[in-house]
Amino acid sequence: MQVTNLVNGVDLDRLSGTIDAVTADPALARFEFRASNHWIDGGYSRTTIKGFYGAGQEDATRTEPFTVDADEPPVLLGENRAPNTVEYVLHALAACLSGTIVYHAAARGIALESMETTIHGDLDLHGFLGLDSNVRPGYEQIRVTIKATGDFDDNQLATLADLTRYSPVRDIVTNPVAVAVDVVRG
Amino acid sequence: MQVTNLVNGVDLDRLSGTIDAVTADPALARFEFRASNHWIDGGYSRTTIKGFYGAGQEDATRTEPFTVDADEPPVLLGENRAPNTVEYVLHALAACLSGTIVYHAAARGIALESMETTIHGDLDLHGFLGLDSNVRPGYEQIRVTIKATGDFDDNQLATLADLTRYSPVRDIVTNPVAVAVDVVRG
Repeated sequence: MQVTNLVNGVDLDRLSGTIDAVTADPALARFEFRASNHWIDGGYSRTTIKGFYGAGQEDATRTEPFTVDADEPPVLLGENRAPNTVEYVLHALAACLSGTIVYHAAARGIALESMETTIHGDLDLHGFLGLDSNVRPGYEQIRVTIKATGDFDDNQLATLADLTRYSPVRDIVTNPVAVAVDVVRG
Repeated sequence: MQVTNLVNGVDLDRLSGTIDAVTADPALARFEFRASNHWIDGGYSRTTIKGFYGAGQEDATRTEPFTVDADEPPVLLGENRAPNTVEYVLHALAACLSGTIVYHAAARGIALESMETTIHGDLDLHGFLGLDSNVRPGYEQIRVTIKATGDFDDNQLATLADLTRYSPVRDIVTNPVAVAVDVVRG
């Protein structure tokens, strides 16, 4: 009989196994994620996501690629065929905050019942349009509210908020990441 | 007969109309994008995207919400039900660089035939796992290669590369964005 030590849907034995493995061999912590985007028309494009490197090897668990589309709404000259790219940033950030809380809460024995996250980002189109060099193209600020229920007291609720500092996407959005872009003739 | 002035799938008359409108009334440039995320299990969650505010009004063109899932691969204790959150960041960035080039190239009369973008992000799991406070949770760096074909000379190719500075997601990833996170009892 296999007994799985699950908290919040996280297998704690596998999580501690991962931590032990990375502690023994730090190189196992190195990951390279990848995506390929194919431009279709205007602001409409399609991204394919499949392979990545991590835990010392090329992943082989995904037999089919994921495809994810991006488009713009009509007011931004698109046709609403998919969310736009800055909406995907909100998705990535909200889901990452949620997942980060879930994993780290599990490791601390905090059991969650539900979590609902709402996220808003403010953007001034002057930046993207190049109409005002004092206005950044991206979000001016992002506001997130996470409503959690579960078996935790007020101190543990404060802990949940503090755990979001481990969120990779929170770090990516909050702090600078070096992005090297090479445009070449195809 | 309606004659549409299309370059790269971008309606130039509507684009210049947008620029004129924002120039006449700067408040029209204010957008608020939104998303809601529902946690399901472990690193698996579902984001709903529909409404946004922009161009002086609440958008009413989307009759159905978009739903976008996030999960993790097995090596990160998930079940590959969707890309993970840092892969969505790569999608958002690649699609945004592409769309930004397309719109700004259209405005400059540079006609593109195709654009294929590959993107890689390096991440050290020590940060997310909280095993080393000197390692950030997010990407250490991101590398992008954009292969473009079309009717442009080498100077215009250099212009295409320069146009990526207008990309909202490039700005969000490269420069700090203030993220306010409130965790409350649901």
